[in-house]
Amino acid sequence: MTISQRRDRLRRALAAAELDAMLVSDLVNVRYLSGFTGSNAALLVLADSETPVLATDGRYRTQAAHQAPDAEVVIERACGPHLAGLAAAAGVRKLGFESHVVTVDAFTALGKAAGERCELVRAAGTVERLREVKDAGEIALLRLACEAADAALKDLVDRGGLRSGRTEKDVRNELEALMLAHGADGASFETIVAAGANSAIPHHRPTDAVLAAGDFVKIDFGALVAGYHSDMTRTFVLAPVADWQRDIYTLVADSQRAGREALAPGVGLKDVDAASRQVIADAGYADNFGHGLGHGVGLQIHEAPGINGSAAGTLLAGSAVTVEPGVYLPDRGGVRIEDTLVVDTHPELLTRFPKDLVII
Amino acid sequence: MTISQRRDRLRRALAAAELDAMLVSDLVNVRYLSGFTGSNAALLVLADSETPVLATDGRYRTQAAHQAPDAEVVIERACGPHLAGLAAAAGVRKLGFESHVVTVDAFTALGKAAGERCELVRAAGTVERLREVKDAGEIALLRLACEAADAALKDLVDRGGLRSGRTEKDVRNELEALMLAHGADGASFETIVAAGANSAIPHHRPTDAVLAAGDFVKIDFGALVAGYHSDMTRTFVLAPVADWQRDIYTLVADSQRAGREALAPGVGLKDVDAASRQVIADAGYADNFGHGLGHGVGLQIHEAPGINGSAAGTLLAGSAVTVEPGVYLPDRGGVRIEDTLVVDTHPELLTRFPKDLVII
Repeated sequence: MTISQRRDRLRRALAAAELDAMLVSDLVNVRYLSGFTGSNAALLVLADSETPVLATDGRYRTQAAHQAPDAEVVIERACGPHLAGLAAAAGVRKLGFESHVVTVDAFTALGKAAGERCELVRAAGTVERLREVKDAGEIALLRLACEAADAALKDLVDRGGLRSGRTEKDVRNELEALMLAHGADGASFETIVAAGANSAIPHHRPTDAVLAAGDFVKIDFGALVAGYHSDMTRTFVLAPVADWQRDIYTLVADSQRAGREALAPGVGLKDVDAASRQVIADAGYADNFGHGLGHGVGLQIHEAPGINGSAAGTLLAGSAVTVEPGVYLPDRGGVRIEDTLVVDTHPELLTRFPKDLVII
Repeated sequence: MTISQRRDRLRRALAAAELDAMLVSDLVNVRYLSGFTGSNAALLVLADSETPVLATDGRYRTQAAHQAPDAEVVIERACGPHLAGLAAAAGVRKLGFESHVVTVDAFTALGKAAGERCELVRAAGTVERLREVKDAGEIALLRLACEAADAALKDLVDRGGLRSGRTEKDVRNELEALMLAHGADGASFETIVAAGANSAIPHHRPTDAVLAAGDFVKIDFGALVAGYHSDMTRTFVLAPVADWQRDIYTLVADSQRAGREALAPGVGLKDVDAASRQVIADAGYADNFGHGLGHGVGLQIHEAPGINGSAAGTLLAGSAVTVEPGVYLPDRGGVRIEDTLVVDTHPELLTRFPKDLVII
C-alpha cells in the first residue's frame, strides 16, 4: 500500500463519518499519512481532494519537500491553527480533529482559526484505527526491526555478555551497540536490563547493579528501523538455577504460549489476555502479574490494540502485537517472556530468539 | 534544593494564583516534583499540604514507593481523573490543570471526575516556569551530561572516526556507543550526522551517505544522564577545505560568540537572538539561518526559555540554554555551532569541545 492509499482509506473513513476534512495533529499520524518525520507539523486531509496540505516550520522546508513530494507544503510555525484557517477558507463545515492529542490550549487556538462556520468535530483514534492493520511495507520493516534485535541478543549471549560481574548498564550498552551494528537506527525504547531482585520490577531501568550467580537477568528491549519498533523480552538465569526460578520460568513460558495460541482474527482482546492470565492464576500467582498482556507495535512502541482485561474489541488480521506475561516476586525476582507477532489465521512470529530457559 | 523544596515553590505559586491545588499531568513535571519516572502518572499538589498524592498503575507499584518515598501513592490506571476526584473530595474549589498538556478528551474526563463544585483552572506552564531555573543538583547533572558528550566526541575524532569512506550512520553508531562508554544513559535525542550537501539540512537524520573529501560533517548530539540532556553541535571539514567553507564557518563562529556574549540575566530573549543573527544578516546570509537561536535544556531537550525573534521575556540566572546559529546553503552544505551554557553574570560553558575549525 502506498502512502496515498493510506490517505484514501482515511478519506473513506471521513466520508463515512460525514466529515469534510481531518486535521491530523499527532506527529506519528502525520508521518503515517505523508511520510514526513519532522518534529513540528500538521496535516490537512480533505475528503474531496487527493492532495493533502502539510504544514511545518522553516527548519524542515527541504526535508518536507523531499519526504512528502505529493503534499502541498506550507511553512508556518503554528501548523494546526494555520491549517484550520485554510480548511475554513476552503469551505469545510465539519473538520475532524484529534481530540485525544490536541491540548485544551491548542483547541482554543484551533477554534479561533476555524471561525464560526467551521465546526471542530472530535475524531479521536480515526488514524490509529487505520494504523492498527499493517500493510506489507510496514510488516517488512517490523520484520527487519525484530531481526536486528534477535541478532543483537544472540551476539550478546554468544560473546559472554551476560557473565557475572558485569553491570546492568554494561549489558544495556553492549546490547544497544549490537543492535546498531545489526542495522537498527537505535533502541525502540529504553532498554530494560534487570538482574537479581531488580527483575521483580516490571519496568526497571538499568543501574550499576552487578550480575551475580543465581540471578535472573530480564532483558526487555527492541530495535528501531525506519520508524518501526520491535519489542521482545527474554529472561535468563545465571547458574546455579533454583527450583523456584525454574518453576516460575516454566509457568510464564506456558502462559505466554497460551497467549500466542489464542491470537487469531476476530478473537476478543480480553479473551487473549484471559487465555494467558488464566495459566498464571491457576498456579496461584494472579497477584504477581499486574500488567496487561500486550499491545500493538508499529510506528509507536505502544499502539492499538491494547490486549488486557478491560479491552473492548477484537483482534484484526494484519495487526502486530506483543504477548508478554510476567510473574514478579517482590525482592526475589521476576520473569517476563515477550514476543511480537503479526495476527493472522497462522500468526507470524517476528521475534525468533529461543524461549527455552537459558542458563548462563 | 530537594524535591520537597521544589514543591514548596509550586505551592507558593499556587497561593499567588489563588489555586487550592494543582493537578500535574505532564510526566516530566511529575518527575521534577516527585522523582517518579514511570510512563503513566499524575501528581496532585495541595496548596496546604506538604504531602503530594502520586497516582500510577500497577506496573509501577514498587518503583513509585522507591522513587517517591514522601508521596502518598495510589494505584489507579486513570491517574488524572482519579486525582481530580480526590481533590474534589478534599474540598478543593479551584484546581489548576496543565491546559497545554491535557488533551480535549482527557479534559472531559477530568471535568466529570471533579464534578460541579471543583473548578478546573488553566495553569499552563506553571511548573515549566519553575523548571527554567535549575538548582545545584540539576546543574551538576547537566555538567555530567555535557562532559560525557565532550569526551565521546573527542574520542571519536582521536580514533579517526570521521575519516572518508565511513557512512553517517557509522559515525552516529560509534558516537552513541562512546557516549554510553563515558557514562551516558543514552543519547539525549536522535543524533544528527550530516555529511556534504546533507549538512545544509538543519535536522538531517543519518543515512548511508558516505563521508568524502571536501565535505562538511555536521554533528548535533547530546548525552542523557539521570534524566538531564546535553546538546552540542560541531561542524568539521574533511580536507581539502574550500574558501566558501572557511568563510561560512568563521561567520557562524562569530555569530555564535556574539550570542554567547549576549547571555546575561535580565537580557531580553529576542535581543540574544538578534545579537547573534545580526552577524549573519550583516554578511548577507539572513535567509540561510531559518531557525531560532536556542532553547532551554534540562529534563527535556527543548524546554523554556525559547530564544528566538518572537520570544517574550528575559533570561533568568540559573537557566541552562543553547546558543546554536547556523548557515545553510541548499545543495552545498551548512554549518551550525552550538553550546549549552548556564546563564549567569559570567555564564558557565558546559560543552567544552573546541570550536576552532577542525580539518580532518
